[in-house]
Amino acid sequence: MSQKLEQLARDEAFMARALALAERGTGWTSPNPLVGAVIVKDGRIIGEGWHTACGQPHAEREALAACDEDPAGSTLYVTLEPCCHWGKTPPCTDAILEAGIARVVVGALDPNPLVAGQGCAQLREAGTVVETGVLEEGCRHLNEVFFHFITTGRPLVVLKYAMTLDGKAATRTGASRWITGPEARERVHRDRHRFAAIMVGIGTALADDPALTCRLEGGPWRQPLRIVVDSQGRLPLDALLVRTAQEIPTLVAVGPQASAERTGALREAGCSVWASPPAEGGNGAVNLPALLDHAGSLGIDSILVEGGPALHGAFIDGGLANRVQAYIAPKLFGGASAPGPVAGRGVALPADALRLSSPTVTALGPDLLLECAVSPSVESEATPCSPAL
Amino acid sequence: MSQKLEQLARDEAFMARALALAERGTGWTSPNPLVGAVIVKDGRIIGEGWHTACGQPHAEREALAACDEDPAGSTLYVTLEPCCHWGKTPPCTDAILEAGIARVVVGALDPNPLVAGQGCAQLREAGTVVETGVLEEGCRHLNEVFFHFITTGRPLVVLKYAMTLDGKAATRTGASRWITGPEARERVHRDRHRFAAIMVGIGTALADDPALTCRLEGGPWRQPLRIVVDSQGRLPLDALLVRTAQEIPTLVAVGPQASAERTGALREAGCSVWASPPAEGGNGAVNLPALLDHAGSLGIDSILVEGGPALHGAFIDGGLANRVQAYIAPKLFGGASAPGPVAGRGVALPADALRLSSPTVTALGPDLLLECAVSPSVESEATPCSPAL
Repeated sequence: MSQKLEQLARDEAFMARALALAERGTGWTSPNPLVGAVIVKDGRIIGEGWHTACGQPHAEREALAACDEDPAGSTLYVTLEPCCHWGKTPPCTDAILEAGIARVVVGALDPNPLVAGQGCAQLREAGTVVETGVLEEGCRHLNEVFFHFITTGRPLVVLKYAMTLDGKAATRTGASRWITGPEARERVHRDRHRFAAIMVGIGTALADDPALTCRLEGGPWRQPLRIVVDSQGRLPLDALLVRTAQEIPTLVAVGPQASAERTGALREAGCSVWASPPAEGGNGAVNLPALLDHAGSLGIDSILVEGGPALHGAFIDGGLANRVQAYIAPKLFGGASAPGPVAGRGVALPADALRLSSPTVTALGPDLLLECAVSPSVESEATPCSPAL
Repeated sequence: MSQKLEQLARDEAFMARALALAERGTGWTSPNPLVGAVIVKDGRIIGEGWHTACGQPHAEREALAACDEDPAGSTLYVTLEPCCHWGKTPPCTDAILEAGIARVVVGALDPNPLVAGQGCAQLREAGTVVETGVLEEGCRHLNEVFFHFITTGRPLVVLKYAMTLDGKAATRTGASRWITGPEARERVHRDRHRFAAIMVGIGTALADDPALTCRLEGGPWRQPLRIVVDSQGRLPLDALLVRTAQEIPTLVAVGPQASAERTGALREAGCSVWASPPAEGGNGAVNLPALLDHAGSLGIDSILVEGGPALHGAFIDGGLANRVQAYIAPKLFGGASAPGPVAGRGVALPADALRLSSPTVTALGPDLLLECAVSPSVESEATPCSPAL
């Protein structure tokens, strides 16, 4: 193996360690990215760290603070370009230069317009060797939510639903508990920790009276913001969501015609109430693009939409979904009137279908989870499916 | 390795060869099983054969005829128990004894009540060493259709449909061509060669005017019997199915109220017309259990139901399906009124769902194929999903 290839293999191994460290912050760093850092001197790791939670020091500073010897002359591996601006904490580039780091290996550049290559440029100007793009795909994938949020200002929207192998989200009588087994439902709870917010429509809130909390064993777990899309403000005060709103933040998004009496009562019970501007078409519905903007302004970088067919349909009709999580149970409900997971207006022609890409398949007990990204790709460019188990 | 394990490894290797030979008959042997045979003397294969088509010699006789030296004292590997009764050809046990085969290694016993262990017993009585159960699971799986047919007298019924990831079999306007890509559609054509019959409902026949033929390149390919479930006898004489009925057998199953004029016209055009006895409920529909019995009496051992939602729903409501093939395209149609792949009455409660088992996942270009067996297993016994690619 040439010296260059050996160096690359070493770099990738230390970056893989940094990636594993970064993942430890899952669920806690929002709206900051997940970042891991490893400091290596003479082939040995002398310090490592990760961004543990929003408001806490960045991974680079954690790794520097953890060093058990002088980091001067060492190599820093970091999954995301070091910041060069003041946020909640001072720029990491300053700390790297102060510590006398000789070489910085970066996974992915920071898409934040305030950084976007400037971090690397500053380090290079100061004489540090900087290399980029090591395990870049993994580093970008890790921070899909952050990359989306920082570039659009809106949360990444993931539609989640469970259905049978004949595409039913409920039986003909509307019953839907449970379609999937415990393994799939545990995965949903894990996602509730991972997503900044969980959203349902008023139909689901009324039918299921859900808590929308992360109720995994172990932990601690972060509880997501709960958002109810409730154009008329019908959410009952004795709903579990309202009764727990003092402890777990709960946002009720109402339409322009919701009564002041109802919204006042919900506010008094501890809910945040956000009054939507009129939606396109002016039918009293909540304006979903405006709601996403509002959520973004609150720092909500990701929303898991556990909606019923109507809410999913509204997201699809509006072109507002970024990913789909379809849990598929190996059973059939049958029934011409049994509802599917996505309602709404829908497309007229198969060629107008909303195309998905990068499907992955995960087996969860007896059930399957199919995850796809929403993509504008045309049929001929469809990504070959690569089930990853 | 002990001598016994060495023998087993050798036996499995030769049986694997016999299995591979058996598969060459795929599509041609119906309603006979697929069978492969290998004759081994002093560790070398001296003859091999397979059942090439219904009416042709059995695999054992093909292998014996192919021997390039005297098979006396050799070992015969055969995927299915040799027959001991007269069918279209004389019993294979006679040929094995005449040839002086010393040892017979059998994959699976023949479930045919006319054989069912008697073949092995006859050989043993005559002094031949007989061993059974080598690669038994593979040998049984290969002949799932035969095993079902020989024990029930009815064809194995496989429901096949394509749907989007939101469970739609068509858009809100009813358009459904195409949901899946060319790779998935090629697989369907391969199955048309493999199944004894293809079935559609009159709704699909009217909407799509399908040919239901195997149109793969290469070949030759066997054309399946085409069955149309058409309670009123509405199939137009200018439908592609009717226009090609002189060349490719076509069965129209009509209900008790279909007019003599329509059925006469269809017969004259070359279709077989089967008049159904009244169905349960007496609504003029075709009696599906009776239709399956009729198909079985014609030697139809397997039916691929490429039906619309109504026909699939009738099979599900009647508990008449044995397997499900769901082709899932990574796209969304949306639309509250867009139909799913299975209609019918359906179940009322999730716990009453028709349970499926042994799911496998196959990637076909951008699409996924999920195949499951219909199983009466309860939730706690659900088979873990094992995607096989």
